[in-house]
This record gives sequence, C-alpha cells and structure tokens, in this order.
Amino acid sequence: MSRLFMFEKPLGMRDTLPDLYETKHHVRSVLEDEMKRWGFQFIETPTLEYYETVGTASAILDQQLFKLLDQEGHTLVLRPDMTAPIARVAASKLLKEKLPNRLAYSANVFRAQQREGGRPAEFEQVGVECIGDETVSADGEMIALAISSLKKAGLKNFQLSVGHAKFVQELFIEILGNEERARELTRFLYEKNYVGYREHVKGLPLSSIDTQRLLSFLELRGGSEVIGMALELIENGKGKEAVLELQELWDVVQDFEEGSFIKFDLTLVSHMSYYTGILFEVYAGKVGFPIGNGGRYDGLLEKFGKSIGATGFALNLDRLLEALGQLDGNIPAACILFSPERRKEAYQLASERRASGERVVLQDISGVKNLDACTNKFSDVAFLIGKAGKEPAQ
Amino acid sequence: MSRLFMFEKPLGMRDTLPDLYETKHHVRSVLEDEMKRWGFQFIETPTLEYYETVGTASAILDQQLFKLLDQEGHTLVLRPDMTAPIARVAASKLLKEKLPNRLAYSANVFRAQQREGGRPAEFEQVGVECIGDETVSADGEMIALAISSLKKAGLKNFQLSVGHAKFVQELFIEILGNEERARELTRFLYEKNYVGYREHVKGLPLSSIDTQRLLSFLELRGGSEVIGMALELIENGKGKEAVLELQELWDVVQDFEEGSFIKFDLTLVSHMSYYTGILFEVYAGKVGFPIGNGGRYDGLLEKFGKSIGATGFALNLDRLLEALGQLDGNIPAACILFSPERRKEAYQLASERRASGERVVLQDISGVKNLDACTNKFSDVAFLIGKAGKEPAQ
Repeated sequence: MSRLFMFEKPLGMRDTLPDLYETKHHVRSVLEDEMKRWGFQFIETPTLEYYETVGTASAILDQQLFKLLDQEGHTLVLRPDMTAPIARVAASKLLKEKLPNRLAYSANVFRAQQREGGRPAEFEQVGVECIGDETVSADGEMIALAISSLKKAGLKNFQLSVGHAKFVQELFIEILGNEERARELTRFLYEKNYVGYREHVKGLPLSSIDTQRLLSFLELRGGSEVIGMALELIENGKGKEAVLELQELWDVVQDFEEGSFIKFDLTLVSHMSYYTGILFEVYAGKVGFPIGNGGRYDGLLEKFGKSIGATGFALNLDRLLEALGQLDGNIPAACILFSPERRKEAYQLASERRASGERVVLQDISGVKNLDACTNKFSDVAFLIGKAGKEPAQ
Repeated sequence: MSRLFMFEKPLGMRDTLPDLYETKHHVRSVLEDEMKRWGFQFIETPTLEYYETVGTASAILDQQLFKLLDQEGHTLVLRPDMTAPIARVAASKLLKEKLPNRLAYSANVFRAQQREGGRPAEFEQVGVECIGDETVSADGEMIALAISSLKKAGLKNFQLSVGHAKFVQELFIEILGNEERARELTRFLYEKNYVGYREHVKGLPLSSIDTQRLLSFLELRGGSEVIGMALELIENGKGKEAVLELQELWDVVQDFEEGSFIKFDLTLVSHMSYYTGILFEVYAGKVGFPIGNGGRYDGLLEKFGKSIGATGFALNLDRLLEALGQLDGNIPAACILFSPERRKEAYQLASERRASGERVVLQDISGVKNLDACTNKFSDVAFLIGKAGKEPAQ
C-alpha cells in the first residue's frame, strides 16, 4: 500500500479510542436505560437500505447520501437517518395491533461531507419514535423524555426550542399567497439568517400590515406568552389549530413539570422536510449545533402505505458528550507479569481479582519490551517471576 | 416509491426486532464485560475505510467487499472485518509505548452475498486483538478468553479446534516442493473436502512414503497425542518449531485449566490468509458454522509499517445466539392509560414506578384505537380516566 494511504481514513470518518469509547458507552447506556423505562423498545435496522425505499423517504439531501450499486444494479444507501428505516419496519411488521408503537434505537448514521470541515460523516444517534399516536400528549412525551434522558445523563444547562411546522407554513402562505414564495422565505429561517429575512421581507410587494406581520413573526420567541401573540398574528383556521396545539403542549409539559427547560421559538424550521407539526431542537451550553431534535411527521408512514401519525426525536451522542464536557473514561487496570513457571499461579490470581470486578491484564514478561512503560500504564503491577517465593524487589 | 420496493431490504440485510435485540444486547454485554475484566480496551473504527488501506489488508475476497467511490474518486469499502482496521489504529496511534496492546471491539462487518442463501451480508463480531506480544502465552490467553467469555454467556456445549498455519504450509511445501502445489492441496482443507483431498493426493506423482504422509496428515485430529504424531510427520525445522509451539500452547491451556474444551486439528486452515501461526475455530452444538475463530497474524502489522506480532479472535454474535438456543428477550412493560385531566397524576405515578426500575408506558387513551390489544400487550394496565376517584371497573 502507498505511504499516502497507510493510516488514512475517508473524509469525515473517525476512530474512537478507549477513554472516549468508555465515556460514550456509559452515556449511551444511561440514555438507553431511561428510554427503556419509558417503555420504548429498541430495534436495529441494516446499515444499507435500498435508495428507493429509505433513501428517498429520508429528508437528507441527495448529495449527502453515500450511494453504491448492488449486483443487480439497484442503488443502495448507507442509512442517513433512522426515522425512515424505523417507519419501514413499523409499517411492514409492527403495526398490525393498531396500537401506538414506541420504538428506540442507538445507531450510526451516514452523511457524506463535501469538504474537510470537521463535520463527521458517520455519527451516532440515540433516539425514539412513537408511531400511531396522534395526541399532543405524545408530542409532550417526546419532549419530557428528551429532558429526562438528558438529565439522567448528567446534563444541567440545556434548553428545548419548540415550534410548529404548520404554523410557519400556514402564516407564510396566508401572507405570500403560494408555496413557492413561502419556501423562499423559509430558507432564511433554516439558515437562521434573520438579517437576510428582514431584507427579503422589506423587498416584497406587500401591504405595510403584512410586511409588519412577517417582521413581528420574528419576535415569536420566548415563554408561553408567545402563544397568545401567535394566535393574534395568524388568521386562517389551520394556523390557529397549530397554535392551539402549542397551547395544549404547554399544558402537557407543565403537567410533566418540565416547563423550565422549554422556550417557544415559532421561527424554528427544520431541514427535515417530513415534519408536519410540533417540532423542537435541544441546545446545550456552548455547543454550537443542536445536540438533538425531534418532531411530528404525520406524512412519512404514508410512504410505507400506512395513514398514521408519528413523532420522535434523536440525540446526537457526540454533541451531547461535548456538552457534558470532560468526562473521565479511563478505567484503571492492573497487570500481573509472569514467567512461564508461574503461569498457573498468575492465572489463578488474575481469575480471583477479575471475579471481584477488577480489570486485570495477564502478561508473559517475555512479551514486554519496555518494562517502565508497563509499570506506568497500569494502576498496579504484580510480578510472579522465577520460582515461587522469589519475586524480585519492585 | 414502487410497491416492489416498499418494504424490501438489500440482499442479506436484516432487521432486529425488540425481543432479539434485548437478547443480543444482554449476550454482547456479558462478552464485553469479560473482555474488559481481562484488561482489553474497546475501540470503535469507522464503517467506511479506504480500499487501499483496509480493503487490501483484510483477508476477505474482493468480490465480497461492498465498494463505493468518494467524491475524489477514491474507492471506499464497508469494513469486511475488524482486524485490519484495528491494526491500522494500533500502528498509527497506540504502539508508541512498545507495550502489548490489548484491544477489543463489538462491531458490524459487511460481506456482500452473491445470491439469496440465508447468509447475512452484515453481522456483528465481538472480538479482541493482542498486538505486540509474540509469546505463546498470548496465543493461550486468546483461547482461554474465548472459552471464558463463552462460558460467561451461558454456553456449555462447545469446543475449540486448534491448528497451526505454518505446520500445514511447511509440511505441504516439504512434500510437494513448491507453494503453488501446496496452495492447490490446501484448497481441499478450506472446503473440508477430505474425500477430494485423498483423491487429489493419490493422483500426485509422489513416492509411496510421501503419499502416505499426506494421507496420515488427515489423522492429525484429536487430543494432545496428535502433537507427537505431527512431530514425527514433519522433517524440516520450521515445521517442527510450529509443532513445539502447539506443545507449549497445550502447557499454557492446562495451566489455565481449560484443556477440556480443546481439540487439536492440524488440518485446520483459514480463509483468512493473514494467519501465520496458531489458529483456532470454535464450534458449538448443532450450529453448522464456527461461532468464532482466531489466530496469530504476525505479518499484518507490517502492512502498516510495524514489524510486530499479533493474535486475536472474533465471535459471531448471531451464531452464538443460535448456539445458546431460545433465550427470552421479552422484558415486560406496564401501561398507564390516562385522560388529559389526570395526566399530571399519571405522570407522577409513571415516574415513581420507573424510578423503581419498572418499564412503564404512559399512554393518552385517546391515542389508542384498540383497547383490547393494549391490555393484551402489557403486563398490567392501569386506568387514570375521568375525574379522580372515578376509575372505570377494569
């Protein structure tokens, strides 16, 4: 192999070394345990899916998909998210009972990066989907479970921004007249480019009242008072329904006593185009990107032949670890160095210490080229060398 | 999307539903815990690697690799095994201390299937690598750890077949004169086609003594008496060294008191072409394929610029589950059905029960279309409906 490639990994691909691995494993377990206690059942789906099945149903840009051809010439994708695969499984296997299905996953997802920018092309999501429950209680449960999981993981300083996909859509169409213009304006919200939004709005051929409405829309961020303001801003029925859902959600979240983590942000939109209702993003400390996001996607299951609503969320495990800050994943291990004549004794000693939960490396001393490094690496080192009773001084 | 593809998965790809997921999670944890107690440190590597780096270093047939192109036109592969990626990580990041590195992984690997034959194209391996320790003690440790992990997982009826890559190679070259003829004969061993082997040997232009030696070779399967027989059969020094390693291994395994799980099979060869020394396969009960395999691969690290020996093994988690037989992964969950006016009370009750470790689904009754299915699905169902104190009779 060429020197160039000897140690290289593809763009956006990373190794996880032991200390980080242990930390990640611990945090993942805490999240999983909480999701299980809320009655969510974990499933696993394949890394590769048909492009036609899951690739097109997912909301990830085509250029971000890793694609390959199978031997029959079908296009496969590395799953870019877990929501579409879980919708596929639920629709094909799990929804016979007409009961809400609570499913969960911890899985790596894949999004091709265009250039070296520190964005991972493979990252782990821990998330849940509640399929077949169209109540606002289910939306509230997603938010409460996200909060509860994060608290269990030890996160203190975080906030959920809550919005509604339909509210934005209805308001923009009501004022701008068609979907294309609504989409154009929504683009500024995706990018959180509020300056650009204002410039764009001021350039539109609108009445001064409508211009003002679109500018006031940007103020719909804050506590529950935002709900009343939103209700005044929107005129059509569907838009008002969306606001009333947010009111009901606020009641749910208060019943769950998690109101303090919630901020309303009615300017919130998602690059996940399948969201149809209440949606949210989780922000923590100084982490620049959301550490999680979720929402209602009542249309997605229809792509798999089921007219049924669903809601869910996913946490980005790496970003959560970043938000949690320095966690010590290093778990100390002891080492027993032995020479062959005392191997049996060494093995028995190691077995005893392992049985009591200790991590113990058993090492033939002739396999060690650097004894100093060995004594530095391990929490303690025992020598069983030469004939019994003749350990060298340590 | 077309009806054809609506629920389809690519060839050899599978979903893991909740009961199996729980079982798999449990068995994986038991294996991981034992490996950690033996001082092995878990790491994670990317799903995608450069073909030039890891694809060519792995011993998997080219036609079994899932390949794709990145945006610069480099060929990427979905990792077909974990040994080559771990060798890459160890060589680039971990071997500075000149200490044996004990690394572990649980990871999915990918091998494209040519046709529908029930063979999975994505499956999970739980394994370890001991890099930088060239002692037979390290080979013995791999075998003892494999045995110990499997016992901890609850497996009773299993056996390790132990052979030596160099013994076979040296014997065949000694008798047949060159590598090509040796490879040709080895092919029958890969396929465990002993009839074909005998036919082939009888057709070779050899002295009757050499013909008899190659036929006697097939008898080298059994207890430790095989070692003496092998020593008589081989004449050259390297071949004898290989047998003496097996003798030493037998001493190690006896010190570790695991001799009863070992059978020698000197006809054992592996499709993993990188094995250079002691190698083994694990068989269990009625499972038709090895549930695990391992061995010494002293040449692989050289591909990453390090002249250092290594040994390791991998367990196939699905096959291990098959060997363990029916395990009940179903963990019961309770359900609290509520109407909105008692949501707060329901949430508090759920929180209490969850805090005591119970799995509790909290369900708005208006989200349930089939109440009978609900009471069937959960271990118990509590109703908090209507005004407090007015639960309907259950």
